[in-house]
Amino acid sequence: MDIKNICILGAGNLGTRIALQAALSGFDVVVYDIEQKALDFSLTTMQKILSHLHRAGQIREDIDASFPAKIRFTLDPQEAVRDADVISESVTEDLEVKKKVWRQFGAIAPEKTIFTTNTSYLLASMFAEESGRQEKFCAFHFHDVFYSRVVDIMPHSDTDPGIIPILEDLGRKLNQVPIILKKENPGYLFNTLLLALLGAAAKLLNREVASFQDIDRAWMVNFHMPMGPFGIMDSVGLDTAWHIISALPDRHSQAFAALLKTYLDKGKLGEKAGEGFYSYPNPEFKKPEFIM
Amino acid sequence: MDIKNICILGAGNLGTRIALQAALSGFDVVVYDIEQKALDFSLTTMQKILSHLHRAGQIREDIDASFPAKIRFTLDPQEAVRDADVISESVTEDLEVKKKVWRQFGAIAPEKTIFTTNTSYLLASMFAEESGRQEKFCAFHFHDVFYSRVVDIMPHSDTDPGIIPILEDLGRKLNQVPIILKKENPGYLFNTLLLALLGAAAKLLNREVASFQDIDRAWMVNFHMPMGPFGIMDSVGLDTAWHIISALPDRHSQAFAALLKTYLDKGKLGEKAGEGFYSYPNPEFKKPEFIM
Repeated sequence: MDIKNICILGAGNLGTRIALQAALSGFDVVVYDIEQKALDFSLTTMQKILSHLHRAGQIREDIDASFPAKIRFTLDPQEAVRDADVISESVTEDLEVKKKVWRQFGAIAPEKTIFTTNTSYLLASMFAEESGRQEKFCAFHFHDVFYSRVVDIMPHSDTDPGIIPILEDLGRKLNQVPIILKKENPGYLFNTLLLALLGAAAKLLNREVASFQDIDRAWMVNFHMPMGPFGIMDSVGLDTAWHIISALPDRHSQAFAALLKTYLDKGKLGEKAGEGFYSYPNPEFKKPEFIM
Repeated sequence: MDIKNICILGAGNLGTRIALQAALSGFDVVVYDIEQKALDFSLTTMQKILSHLHRAGQIREDIDASFPAKIRFTLDPQEAVRDADVISESVTEDLEVKKKVWRQFGAIAPEKTIFTTNTSYLLASMFAEESGRQEKFCAFHFHDVFYSRVVDIMPHSDTDPGIIPILEDLGRKLNQVPIILKKENPGYLFNTLLLALLGAAAKLLNREVASFQDIDRAWMVNFHMPMGPFGIMDSVGLDTAWHIISALPDRHSQAFAALLKTYLDKGKLGEKAGEGFYSYPNPEFKKPEFIM
């Protein structure tokens, strides 16, 4: 199957980045959202990303800020999916919203369309059935498209195995490294690994074995890494971390969530709030003396 | 307290590296072992490390292969500790051996001596009492001295808090990043974090969520790291990993140990054996196409 047309549902941060990368990779792209201001935001964001890629020398000279004009933006569902070979859905991470969107688009998409969701924490099997074609349905999960170039391909139990190689090939054409899961796993692979690391760090802090700075330092120096577990949490956002961790039932996760809650209650949401475990924009762990 | 004389007990790999770094840092160093061939091995190893540091441009020109002649090597316990401000013990990782050594040296060391152990998996509190001076006793744990420049300072419940800043200062003078633990924790900080990561990776593999290559790939690409959990295990040695993990009581660790055992039974001990999860010297994960 030759993929040419990609329909992006949801013009938020990730949908926008996927759409831009798809257009840069030569695909015909339509971006759909329910509000004009979301589409306007998407266009502006694309221009910002392009100028960033230009400054970093990561993009062809002839691709300039006018490029997104080649991408179609629409509020019309029919128009959005008319020729779609693949739908990539990045709507709000809310089960009821996902169900509603897939009922709507499953009913109007052409026979040929492969359905993919970019869900981060939900599982495709929770809403694939709503599309009426769960065998054409697979999680196709991007991280941030340009910096972390990973796309997870995670089938659920009813996914037709024949669409895996098609998505693998599409992932490569989108300049991503495809990671293939054999079955569903909440958080895919990376988040599962990362959460284990962050959970162990939080447990050391909760047990008062060491300061968060020393825990980060141990990781950074041994692995020659630019940040440690608590720096990573600040970068992810302590609210996001809390949201994920508070949903886990085990005792250690609950203690970890309680620790994060003490930060949230003081408005310390991490890097974006200027304060988390560290203070920004010049956190202690980025200073040379931190690892001396 | 001004540290000048350092006594190294055990002329194995780590004792040798600590001794060399201490001498390079301007300390007077005596290396003690029970066998002449261990001392000979230590001297030869120091010469190899020096020539390696020279090639890497990480050492002063005037320090050549004759340098270790400045370090004293001895089979005589009395001679070894006569002026020791600090003892750094790196004998075999065996509780009975550690106990015996500390009974012996606790009895003959000068009043001033600070006692440190480089134990990796045992806790100082398991044998500090044998020295007769557990308040002078603290874990002072090096990783590999030259590449991973971390030294863990881990007091046990009877350690005199006054020796922590002395060891912190000594650690810096030895060109290490001191990491301070507030209480004992098996595996210090780094091994606790690493084990959590490796355990999560093993659980994904055991549950057949993905191949070990895809699990490594997810970690490597997202974190821009040169290897993933299974590459790290190969590098640590699957026998060493098994040794640590099989001692942990929980179900996941036992399943992880059982998985590693299937490799050990085939002689696949990791990088040093030419075969582990990957084949060496050119493992798949180092090839450019691995993350494409």
